[in-house]
Amino acid sequence: MDTLEQQFDVRYRYRVHLTEDALAPENDLLARTLAADRAARPRVLVAVDRGVLAAQADLAARVESYARTHALDLVDAPLVLPGGETGKNEPRHLERVLAAIERGGICRHSYVVGIGGGALLDLVGFAAAQAHRGVRMVRLPTTVLAQCDAAVGVKTGINAFGKKNFLGSFAPPWAVINDLRFLDSLSVRDWRAGIAEAVKVALVKDAAFFERLERDAERLLHRDRGAMRALIAHAARLHLEHIARGGDPFETGSARPLDFGHWAAHKLEQLSDYRLRHGEAVAIGIALDATYSRLAGWLADDAHERILALLERFGFELDVPELGEGGLLAGLDEFREHLGGELTITLLGAIGRGFEVHAMDEERVRASIDRVRARPGSGSGQPAARPCASGAER
Amino acid sequence: MDTLEQQFDVRYRYRVHLTEDALAPENDLLARTLAADRAARPRVLVAVDRGVLAAQADLAARVESYARTHALDLVDAPLVLPGGETGKNEPRHLERVLAAIERGGICRHSYVVGIGGGALLDLVGFAAAQAHRGVRMVRLPTTVLAQCDAAVGVKTGINAFGKKNFLGSFAPPWAVINDLRFLDSLSVRDWRAGIAEAVKVALVKDAAFFERLERDAERLLHRDRGAMRALIAHAARLHLEHIARGGDPFETGSARPLDFGHWAAHKLEQLSDYRLRHGEAVAIGIALDATYSRLAGWLADDAHERILALLERFGFELDVPELGEGGLLAGLDEFREHLGGELTITLLGAIGRGFEVHAMDEERVRASIDRVRARPGSGSGQPAARPCASGAER
Repeated sequence: MDTLEQQFDVRYRYRVHLTEDALAPENDLLARTLAADRAARPRVLVAVDRGVLAAQADLAARVESYARTHALDLVDAPLVLPGGETGKNEPRHLERVLAAIERGGICRHSYVVGIGGGALLDLVGFAAAQAHRGVRMVRLPTTVLAQCDAAVGVKTGINAFGKKNFLGSFAPPWAVINDLRFLDSLSVRDWRAGIAEAVKVALVKDAAFFERLERDAERLLHRDRGAMRALIAHAARLHLEHIARGGDPFETGSARPLDFGHWAAHKLEQLSDYRLRHGEAVAIGIALDATYSRLAGWLADDAHERILALLERFGFELDVPELGEGGLLAGLDEFREHLGGELTITLLGAIGRGFEVHAMDEERVRASIDRVRARPGSGSGQPAARPCASGAER
Repeated sequence: MDTLEQQFDVRYRYRVHLTEDALAPENDLLARTLAADRAARPRVLVAVDRGVLAAQADLAARVESYARTHALDLVDAPLVLPGGETGKNEPRHLERVLAAIERGGICRHSYVVGIGGGALLDLVGFAAAQAHRGVRMVRLPTTVLAQCDAAVGVKTGINAFGKKNFLGSFAPPWAVINDLRFLDSLSVRDWRAGIAEAVKVALVKDAAFFERLERDAERLLHRDRGAMRALIAHAARLHLEHIARGGDPFETGSARPLDFGHWAAHKLEQLSDYRLRHGEAVAIGIALDATYSRLAGWLADDAHERILALLERFGFELDVPELGEGGLLAGLDEFREHLGGELTITLLGAIGRGFEVHAMDEERVRASIDRVRARPGSGSGQPAARPCASGAER
């Protein structure tokens, strides 16, 4: 032989559940999830987002009570970690999770359960993905954004060298349990921010879903649980279908339809020193790229207006100081480097229909920024420290 | 919905090449490997094992000359790293590789090329697997062991918390280039140590290959290139076939047929403070588990004798002080934890036929140790500091 050809397929399977009060003693979903393949008591390490613990002071006690009821072998008290970018920025938090996995004797047939927002799950998932080359990770996302987007997918990661998600892995979870009860303790701001990802996936994939979001907007703003449950279920389904049927689950190519609006969003988050929530930045990124699509003649004017109007109804402030500072265009180069290879940006041909381009015209990007900033009531002049305060009253 | 079922397959493909002098200007194999999908000059970071550089002082210059000839964009001078367990034990070496990837602007369409032994490739591969959630890694293994075993597989990893390969990933390479020229500068000890992995895979998979190793033993000991090329080609093929057709490429279950002999080998390496090479420890592990198979009545006496005789012909010292120290049996528990779940050990029903058991009888393990130590000329009484010196003259 001079050359051997290796080829094999790996099948990945997991379930995304929607439930209410996963830690109630009588709810056995989590216990069944952790007892999938062995009769013996499953060993479980629980990691909890400090922010969730602050909102639900009895969470640790409820975890321990649940474990007793369902004969789970908790290897330690819940590990408390900072949520948001703090946990992903400081390497010592990754090391803390790894040390807890080692200390607890978590093996490839044990479980790590993460309870928190998307960033917490990224951090804990990255640790779980590398210990013993991958132990089982069950995600309990606690924010709208994580339940409908980040936590149902296949990525983990932390930040390094000042770059978001520079380190990470493609590591499908063992299971995802979306527990609507966690959403009750979200701030208005976080409740709403996650809706941006639902708008995003509707815009690139599903016009009927967009229309439903328009119809449900008032109910969603009034924190109607049924409307939110429907939103999460549908957005999660679209996300999962894209991964399974999009032809590139682990993103070896350069196309990222689910990153519509994200080249600008990532940069705006960074420019704002993470004052902007991810979902808030995504809303602005959607507005910009929808406007760009309009100015290029690909998107009809009425569709463009509906998109921006819906974002505004949800209370997203589309004009933030960072849009005026000129640093945004560097986000295109950083996005290109992150993708690797050719720049690939999703734009809109219609509501529900994304398509890809491989270049962005800088003048047209600038014109899009100006158009978004010039909208009446877009928030221009609002104090930067309360970027979304006006939305809370809508 | 209450539950969404996610399922998808990911296809992995890579090639394992056998060549001579991959860095010769006229050998375009590496250049073709790095130009797989783009017309533009590929960006390449090269990481080199310090031990290989010590044996081939012109290696860095040859890498740079090759890059010029073939229009490769080397992002930096070759990064020099310690080989062996040192590189895997100290986290700063992983950080150095990650920093070089970041500094060099290596993206998911660029390449990291590792040149070194199995440990170096484990380290560099783990860095490549996590930067940008995985950049392309081309392995140029420089030892017999890596060329026929470690480097053709799908694992990466480093040591942590005193545990070998505690952190790592399943990350198939972009390609593997086995360059026989690198073997010329191996010590007698390293040349021979890698042969143990070929004996191992022959024993569990391929009786005809075992017979070939018996026939070729003298040629292999006299460093006959043709015999070694045939050994590497066949062992690599068996290894690849196991991954592709064994039904569990990323080891979600507990069976590890290619880890025959390894529960003892890993522990002996550790007990000897890594004085024992991995291949040397594997040879002892093979002898022990073949003897255990014999004492249990599963392996015929003549087959057992042929196995131990072949290991001895290759010059492996089968009695080392660590066998007598009583710590070896802890290796069974550690192997169980590493596997996760049920202990699963491969034993031999015949030469070329492995099978699995889920328990080892401690008394029989002790008896196996005694039998191996009692063999005439097994090396008992040799000074520990020169565990394989006697073999060089055989």
